[in-house]
Amino acid sequence: MLRIQSFDDLRKCCEKMIVKSRLAVAAADDEHTLEAVLKAQKLEIVTPILVGDSARIKTALANLGFSLNDFVVYHTSDNIEAARVAVSLVRDGKADFLMKGSCPTRDLLRAVVDNEIGLSDKRLMSHCTILEIPGLGRLIGVSDGGMVPYPDLMEKKAIIENAAAVFHTFGNDNPKVGVLTSIEVVNPKMPETVEAAKLAEMNAQGEIKGCIVAGPISYDVAMDPETARYKGYDGPVQGDADILITHDIHAGNILVKALYCSANSKLAGFIVGAKAPIVVSSRGASAEDKFNSILASAASLG
Amino acid sequence: MLRIQSFDDLRKCCEKMIVKSRLAVAAADDEHTLEAVLKAQKLEIVTPILVGDSARIKTALANLGFSLNDFVVYHTSDNIEAARVAVSLVRDGKADFLMKGSCPTRDLLRAVVDNEIGLSDKRLMSHCTILEIPGLGRLIGVSDGGMVPYPDLMEKKAIIENAAAVFHTFGNDNPKVGVLTSIEVVNPKMPETVEAAKLAEMNAQGEIKGCIVAGPISYDVAMDPETARYKGYDGPVQGDADILITHDIHAGNILVKALYCSANSKLAGFIVGAKAPIVVSSRGASAEDKFNSILASAASLG
Repeated sequence: MLRIQSFDDLRKCCEKMIVKSRLAVAAADDEHTLEAVLKAQKLEIVTPILVGDSARIKTALANLGFSLNDFVVYHTSDNIEAARVAVSLVRDGKADFLMKGSCPTRDLLRAVVDNEIGLSDKRLMSHCTILEIPGLGRLIGVSDGGMVPYPDLMEKKAIIENAAAVFHTFGNDNPKVGVLTSIEVVNPKMPETVEAAKLAEMNAQGEIKGCIVAGPISYDVAMDPETARYKGYDGPVQGDADILITHDIHAGNILVKALYCSANSKLAGFIVGAKAPIVVSSRGASAEDKFNSILASAASLG
Repeated sequence: MLRIQSFDDLRKCCEKMIVKSRLAVAAADDEHTLEAVLKAQKLEIVTPILVGDSARIKTALANLGFSLNDFVVYHTSDNIEAARVAVSLVRDGKADFLMKGSCPTRDLLRAVVDNEIGLSDKRLMSHCTILEIPGLGRLIGVSDGGMVPYPDLMEKKAIIENAAAVFHTFGNDNPKVGVLTSIEVVNPKMPETVEAAKLAEMNAQGEIKGCIVAGPISYDVAMDPETARYKGYDGPVQGDADILITHDIHAGNILVKALYCSANSKLAGFIVGAKAPIVVSSRGASAEDKFNSILASAASLG
């Protein structure tokens, strides 16, 4: 498999897949979501299964020029039921992955972590954003800006492993991971730098596999080869990071949104670490963001 | 005074100043630094005072086509002495502001905080970055990504006041400040959101003056009017923030460097809160960054 360098590469790869993934959409009456799902269906990437209030789904579909009769629809009376039905479909092998429509993320996640019908897989669930930054020529993963507020060392290890697994499905067997801080040296007064160094050490000792971890490292050294050279940074990541790990949810969120709003990046995001990928794009996300999220999570099904 | 919207505006303003600012450069044997200082001198923005090893300064000047004889030079035998002499020049009224050359930032700051010769002003010193993001049409301040590691509530208040004071000198009497987190609602489990709300409240009650403070607020709501509208965010900052405050030094540093490396922004940075602005551009900074830092700090002298 060739290494995927853009969302366009990802689309081409997904189009070549022989078996279409079945995508269960919880509370599918959101037009941006439906627009993205219908595009993925048209390109033969997914078979949608729409869950939610059928009258509202009908209206949303009609606004996009489609009829309810063309789809598999599970009618539910409220968001909580929609979330539970969509999750159950994945759990029972009737769908391959999951996407949030108009329901709040917390409703969907409650069903996901439910002991009986849920999709927990004993691993930590984390949010992984995939960004296509103009001119860069590779996709960048950022985690975690949406799920784990203040990860400790072992949670950061799991976040790295989750993100690395996504990049493996993108044809990158050994992605380079930068554990970001403000500096490149360990400062005992800054626990984030100590943990970053520890993660790099765990990687060097084979405790974190399937990737190359460097840290502590600042954004410019992780992303700009010239800065890495100029600063004489001695590490396995020299401006060529694939995955950026932040110390907390706020930093991850700020980074993703700065790259999205101010660097014209394209974006995908989904939750990894459950039995199936879960697309939980925010309310503000465009149909294109949601389509890219479907692509990235469909590709990550392997 | 017109509001300054770009580094070009800032240059034009500085060129119009009748009295040139005197800039003391500590360890002035760095070529990028000298290049920036010489450009500012040519534009009649500053009168440089070069402090450091005169032989090394002579060599660096010669590489740029200049002679030592054309400058006021204070010879010193090492970085620590260079820092102390440069700081003393400002303290004694012989220079107006200060710039780091080839010496480590910590050497310069040790002299700055020295009780006898230093420039401490009883206020918190913080680092303020000024960014010109392509297409945005206004300058953005980010603080603190370089000086205060983990500011508490009152330190964040001081950081806001320091950054607002810079924007006042840029002709913006009431800059809009976004205290960034990952969400717009207060979550008691996330102290950063509680503090952001408290800062907005202190501003509303007149305890933080000369600016408009909103928080907690995420980057996209602070910077993108469309997202603010779509999310129905109810606050005084609606995608039109001038100043962004981060909860810790790592987040600030990541944000600044993402905007610089991945969004083609132009950048200036200096320390505010001492008796004079202090330019401490990093080793990796270009001559252009350093020139912009001279512009911004010269303008902030008022």
